[in-house]
Amino acid sequence: MEDSIMLLCDIGNSSYHFLDGEYEYKESVSSFNPQNITKKVYYISVNAAVNKKLSDLKNWINLAEYVESSNYYDTMGIDRIVACEAIDNGVVIDAGSAITVDIVQDGVFKGGFIYPGKVAMQNTYANISSALHYSFNFELNLDKMPKNSQDAISYGYLKTLFCEVSSYNMEIILTGGDALEFQKVFKEARVDEKLIFNAMKKIIQKADIC
Amino acid sequence: MEDSIMLLCDIGNSSYHFLDGEYEYKESVSSFNPQNITKKVYYISVNAAVNKKLSDLKNWINLAEYVESSNYYDTMGIDRIVACEAIDNGVVIDAGSAITVDIVQDGVFKGGFIYPGKVAMQNTYANISSALHYSFNFELNLDKMPKNSQDAISYGYLKTLFCEVSSYNMEIILTGGDALEFQKVFKEARVDEKLIFNAMKKIIQKADIC
Repeated sequence: MEDSIMLLCDIGNSSYHFLDGEYEYKESVSSFNPQNITKKVYYISVNAAVNKKLSDLKNWINLAEYVESSNYYDTMGIDRIVACEAIDNGVVIDAGSAITVDIVQDGVFKGGFIYPGKVAMQNTYANISSALHYSFNFELNLDKMPKNSQDAISYGYLKTLFCEVSSYNMEIILTGGDALEFQKVFKEARVDEKLIFNAMKKIIQKADIC
Repeated sequence: MEDSIMLLCDIGNSSYHFLDGEYEYKESVSSFNPQNITKKVYYISVNAAVNKKLSDLKNWINLAEYVESSNYYDTMGIDRIVACEAIDNGVVIDAGSAITVDIVQDGVFKGGFIYPGKVAMQNTYANISSALHYSFNFELNLDKMPKNSQDAISYGYLKTLFCEVSSYNMEIILTGGDALEFQKVFKEARVDEKLIFNAMKKIIQKADIC
């Protein structure tokens, strides 16, 4: 597999996230024209509109077709599925605009849940009351019940999630744009910011389509 | 104490919530004129603008002045404080536009946290993605990892909260507009929809100002 010339792309609701060898970059969904790329691109996409656009372009290879999706559920995002394909045992926390938490045991997907991402949740509190307009305190001591407003919302957001995920007693793999921030809470977690891209490479290798 | 003629009022961000004997009713903050009431009203208010208006009206008695607020924290809402005053041991969950969770042990406030209310959180998920635009499933089996989108967000909202609150191993008292819905999740909880009003009566009795 020639990693250096392989072009990967993880497409979300707002951006194309490319990995070109070791170089990562993003393009906006609203302005980027995928026809500008003539070399082969292996991609996954949770964006229905982009999916439609790409289906006519022969050099854009949709890796969703190489995943046994019957192991997952119908409306599950392909990014979550691909991340689960990357591991055999563990909890994958993908911390982005949403936080997805998925469990894989002995290579089998056991289910997962969705929690709001940091920015979305901060806005939620601020919209409930201007008295709750704070950034979250990721350094919060989760063993102590809060006695001020900033800690009260930080605890509400972070400790509840921590409580649930810790109860699985499994290895935690953190990925997504906010992975490093959440590692302050999940101190034992392994951060793998390239989990999705590594998973895509694994699928390419397995399908032998490179 | 003559319950039948005592007028109580719990003032929030959007409404005056009255209890007149056994009869409850609400008035909108934007349209209601408190000067229209000439009899004595015992009230609490988290609404700074209303507080200012009421401070000039001699028949509106602010019960906040009869609570030892140094036992709590500066920016803590008076509704949370008053609810805590009502119990000696337990977790108070007040499920409204926000959900406040407060612990009282041997009559002492131990701290608490704030979680988004049902409507706020449903909007949060819907705003992240139209694919997450669902009502929460309060009948969800919390012992099973979800395998569909509606359950994935319901679990993310409800199970994380349940996990944290259950870990206290204390009696749970549910109040607020969504108390009955949350009892489907906190099956052992005691619902007391009049907790705040009962707490207000207790303060009036203790202060002997009736």
